[in-house]
Amino acid sequence: MPVPPSYDVIAIGNAIVDVMAPCRDALVAELGLERGGMALIDAERAREIYAAMGPAKEISGGSAANTLAGMAALGARCAFIGQVADDQLGEVFQHDIRAGGIAFDTPARVGDPPTGRCLILVTEDGERTMNTLLGASQFLAPESIDETLIAGAGVLYLEGYMWDPEEPRAAMRRAIKAARAAGRKVAFTASESFIIDLHRGDFLELLEAGEIDILFVNEHELAALTGERAFEAGLAAAAAKVPLLVATRGAAGAVAVEGGERAEVAAEPVARVVDTTGAGDLFAAGFLTGHIRGEPLARALKIGAICAAEVIGHYGARPEANLSTLVAERLG
Amino acid sequence: MPVPPSYDVIAIGNAIVDVMAPCRDALVAELGLERGGMALIDAERAREIYAAMGPAKEISGGSAANTLAGMAALGARCAFIGQVADDQLGEVFQHDIRAGGIAFDTPARVGDPPTGRCLILVTEDGERTMNTLLGASQFLAPESIDETLIAGAGVLYLEGYMWDPEEPRAAMRRAIKAARAAGRKVAFTASESFIIDLHRGDFLELLEAGEIDILFVNEHELAALTGERAFEAGLAAAAAKVPLLVATRGAAGAVAVEGGERAEVAAEPVARVVDTTGAGDLFAAGFLTGHIRGEPLARALKIGAICAAEVIGHYGARPEANLSTLVAERLG
Repeated sequence: MPVPPSYDVIAIGNAIVDVMAPCRDALVAELGLERGGMALIDAERAREIYAAMGPAKEISGGSAANTLAGMAALGARCAFIGQVADDQLGEVFQHDIRAGGIAFDTPARVGDPPTGRCLILVTEDGERTMNTLLGASQFLAPESIDETLIAGAGVLYLEGYMWDPEEPRAAMRRAIKAARAAGRKVAFTASESFIIDLHRGDFLELLEAGEIDILFVNEHELAALTGERAFEAGLAAAAAKVPLLVATRGAAGAVAVEGGERAEVAAEPVARVVDTTGAGDLFAAGFLTGHIRGEPLARALKIGAICAAEVIGHYGARPEANLSTLVAERLG
Repeated sequence: MPVPPSYDVIAIGNAIVDVMAPCRDALVAELGLERGGMALIDAERAREIYAAMGPAKEISGGSAANTLAGMAALGARCAFIGQVADDQLGEVFQHDIRAGGIAFDTPARVGDPPTGRCLILVTEDGERTMNTLLGASQFLAPESIDETLIAGAGVLYLEGYMWDPEEPRAAMRRAIKAARAAGRKVAFTASESFIIDLHRGDFLELLEAGEIDILFVNEHELAALTGERAFEAGLAAAAAKVPLLVATRGAAGAVAVEGGERAEVAAEPVARVVDTTGAGDLFAAGFLTGHIRGEPLARALKIGAICAAEVIGHYGARPEANLSTLVAERLG
């Protein structure tokens, strides 16, 4: 019987700052970007895209970090592991996550590359096209994993984006081992279908070995993971591999499947979709917080939908409203 | 007869990035800050205030730079002179101002101090309390003033905040000389009453020598400059010293006096005051653009009020809406 956890959740993810600007629809095509996608870019490409962007805002981001910001706002006890550089954007990331009440003690990495950033173009319809320069984030070393800290958290939450670079992948494998050994749960968010395409073998292996307890995917990632183009077929295939599956479908809502039980939720109404950045991250925040508190699937999904709706109503992937109040009002 | 200008306006101002966070009313008092004011702080105080602030957004700022952002959005041809450091926040400032269509060629300063920043606490009523770490900004050297550039701009616009540190003051004196010699106009924004208190002698001298053609003040600065506590008395005293006086009074609107002619404007209605940062800067942007285009005082004031209303409806001191469209719709 494990001791009661010190944290409800500990996450490993990219430690990056979003650089966000509204943009004409045509610019996405002119820059050769895939609308709504996430691309990894190098410094030269970053300069090119940044130069074409309008005046921007800098707001802390990173998928798992956004999820924790939501969970902390809902009252969960959270800790984060991620790699910033010893520079101004690193300070910004560090400040924002700690100011959100999240424990974050990974020391900043001295020297190049700088703290990662994500250049985000937001078109008039609120769709975001992301271009990530991973920077220091890709050098999160396995030595950064404090196994005692991992063992002391109820859930280990892993960001799929971090599975691609070698060092963070090794760090995450080490963290999974520590969590398993302590009898904790492991949650994994697939992040992007190209990550699945690149590492499908790894993910299937992890799933088959029973290393993952909770899997978050969107419809594209579900298709990439299972090879099933139809949503329901993909859902059935993936649900057979993991104890708890959560699949989001954007405006079409979300589905959760656990031990043969299935629940659905519609997307929460939004006055205006301003910026979809972080919608999936905040959905996961709401769902996971509800799940940890023992809410039934349908209610956990609903909390996810409420949190996702809040974040797409404004610029930036971190919540602005008081999520606890919002959930209390809307959940009923 | 001067040659037609290459720029409508060239401004000298702080090159700083705003670090903005919503805050509880009580925090302003707990930190010993003057609500609604602007204080100059050192690095240690900045650390203390930043540590107490919630998750923040970084958005380029600087009073005169904000004004230019508004003027450029209205179609004016603008250039800026200001000092950033060779660091990430410097890149952010540089990017944002250029992306707004403003010429900016002051080379970044290598080494300490870093690019200036302004820690801004925004309370629930939208009031902003600013804490400025000038950083590199206070080292704008007189050698940075390109006299040919100054001579080629219709109006030289000077930010009062920059009168306090020694080097920028010398740079501004040099710029005034160059503008005067080329037969250009000089506009000055008082920025803050404590700046007036510290340098009243300088300002009165400049005014009496006829070095300033257009003076922007708010009601507090007007009182500080003239020693008259009543607005009307202050207005009369100041209007006697400058060809064109523009005095803003927050929610009570604004007044302009030019050669005995007086015009007023009410504040433009705003759905919700989200953040007053930049209200005065954008008022100046609208007024000055109208004035340059030969609009009568009342219409120039109205353009100012429309621009100020836009910027207080959202976070950050740079305009977000299409100001040209907005002015065209509302001006009638």
